[in-house]
Amino acid sequence: MEQQVETTDIIIIGAGPVGIFAVFEAGLLGLKCHLIDNLDRPGGQCTELYPEKPIFDIPSRPQVTGQELVDDLMTQASPFKPVFHLGQQAEALARQGNGHWRVTTTRGEIIEAPAVAVAAGAGSFVPKKPPYPRLGEFEEHSVDYAVHRMEKYRDKKLVIVGGGDSALDWAINLAPIAGSVTLVHRREEFRGAPDSVQQVLDLADHDGLEVIYGNITELQGDGGQLSSVQVTTLDGVVRDVACDYLLPFMGLKISLGPIAKWGLNLDRKHVEVNHETFDTDVEGIYAIGDVCHYPGKLKLILTGFYEAAVMVRTAFKYAFPDRKMARGYTTTNSEIQERLGVTPK
Amino acid sequence: MEQQVETTDIIIIGAGPVGIFAVFEAGLLGLKCHLIDNLDRPGGQCTELYPEKPIFDIPSRPQVTGQELVDDLMTQASPFKPVFHLGQQAEALARQGNGHWRVTTTRGEIIEAPAVAVAAGAGSFVPKKPPYPRLGEFEEHSVDYAVHRMEKYRDKKLVIVGGGDSALDWAINLAPIAGSVTLVHRREEFRGAPDSVQQVLDLADHDGLEVIYGNITELQGDGGQLSSVQVTTLDGVVRDVACDYLLPFMGLKISLGPIAKWGLNLDRKHVEVNHETFDTDVEGIYAIGDVCHYPGKLKLILTGFYEAAVMVRTAFKYAFPDRKMARGYTTTNSEIQERLGVTPK
Repeated sequence: MEQQVETTDIIIIGAGPVGIFAVFEAGLLGLKCHLIDNLDRPGGQCTELYPEKPIFDIPSRPQVTGQELVDDLMTQASPFKPVFHLGQQAEALARQGNGHWRVTTTRGEIIEAPAVAVAAGAGSFVPKKPPYPRLGEFEEHSVDYAVHRMEKYRDKKLVIVGGGDSALDWAINLAPIAGSVTLVHRREEFRGAPDSVQQVLDLADHDGLEVIYGNITELQGDGGQLSSVQVTTLDGVVRDVACDYLLPFMGLKISLGPIAKWGLNLDRKHVEVNHETFDTDVEGIYAIGDVCHYPGKLKLILTGFYEAAVMVRTAFKYAFPDRKMARGYTTTNSEIQERLGVTPK
Repeated sequence: MEQQVETTDIIIIGAGPVGIFAVFEAGLLGLKCHLIDNLDRPGGQCTELYPEKPIFDIPSRPQVTGQELVDDLMTQASPFKPVFHLGQQAEALARQGNGHWRVTTTRGEIIEAPAVAVAAGAGSFVPKKPPYPRLGEFEEHSVDYAVHRMEKYRDKKLVIVGGGDSALDWAINLAPIAGSVTLVHRREEFRGAPDSVQQVLDLADHDGLEVIYGNITELQGDGGQLSSVQVTTLDGVVRDVACDYLLPFMGLKISLGPIAKWGLNLDRKHVEVNHETFDTDVEGIYAIGDVCHYPGKLKLILTGFYEAAVMVRTAFKYAFPDRKMARGYTTTNSEIQERLGVTPK
């Protein structure tokens, strides 16, 4: 079976504020972008770690929350219709015969472009894995760290692990669909929103939702398919709970992920770049934002915005050496204004 | 007479968007700034050339006018109480015995600081001079290109030249104070706001305001003091108009001004800087924004914002080598938040 290959001008790895602003700057030059991010929405750290926290040092924004900043950047980039590949990492990178790069994601999506920009911040947010024996055996078929399609769990026996918002929300949302949901949490207190905690407690012990305070101590099953998990409760009682899918929601950690193996010049999780161009040492691959490093680097969101503006010009000249690059400013250049879809005064 | 000397941490030459944002970034590090600009309000090109024009490429601002951008930057900088020296140029630069720099302005104000940042854009906005014979003889005592103090003109005979908003506004505002005001304009049509045009026409020929359509062809007077100007009207009539002060408002042009003679490494009106630090080749003097140049320079307002953030750190380390520089982010560092006067969640 032939796999579908999408093509674009720049593949941006990381959909944080810097990656989104790169879409805008690329768009001004007439370039299209696809973005890949392991989170299930754009925004990166801003929306994942401090959506409600005020940021004070974005130029001309005396105070803006992480969520507002990302929303405004998305609005600004929207005329250029970026394509997002969310909930997946850029896994494999391969140079094609025509010199373009092919990126394959952890969900098997394939994108090709002449230029790849790594805007991966401190790395991908990846789920923390529980320390259960035999976990690896079941990961491919019976363990999910994120829910991509609820239908998959219809009439199935689910064991959800965790005490934060993700665990609570999925317990609430999957209970009506699944055959059974067992929520396992290691103590009798939840970290999630009070309203979600109350909903879970209300649903518990009927509507197919059971809450057990304890720890999973064994996984049971064959051929990669779980049949049950052994739970040791806080009282020391050992129970077997029937299980088709195990869904651990134990928080996220940051990891550079597969791009660490791409052969870029990495120094302590940073990619070394040329400060004038944001070229890495691999042709057609660029790095911007917190992930990139050069002498004098100042780690601010502002810095990443600047780097994005310079990088798209480098990528343009590399990818389209015969094309004329739009010059001038958004205030005055009618070609740029047409791309933006604005009619200036 | 001992002249008053003001002291600060960074003297910023140019109060455009980049100079104003430098105040903010300096403030986060605990540094104070004075700014010098030849215009009579902050904002530089943004407010002088395109106050109403939308800008589209400020990160997270899908659309903002030059005036809004400057207003927001002023709000953002306001916790750090910048001091503005407006309507004057930085004229003389001299190193003091303690290594600090002394800047003297064209209005005789004196400021000293360990660091000077040139954020002069394409240069100062300076008035265009009319091509009248003998103009130089009268410039010191009898010709003003800007009004700094209206009282100076009480009961005096004024000749105002020009057809734009400045000429019209000053004709309207000075008519009640002056002994007489004659507005000379080279054609029978004004470029100013319709409302101002109407006011001038209403005042004309009474209330001490006369309008003459024509050109000044001679200046008359002695010892630097004008007595009258000769006007040749569009009909070819030659008239002498009594005149104590000539006020030409013929628009602005851009000139790098006195800093061109400061011994900085200038290349076609640009100051060469180190791209990692924004040092010029003179110790303690920095350049940021459109005025500075290095390989790969991208002339955007965004670039100047980034340069400002890096420059204040360079200046801090140079000016206060023993002081510890605040690290961390506005979202998390309580020292920075205290300086901003904000209480985070």
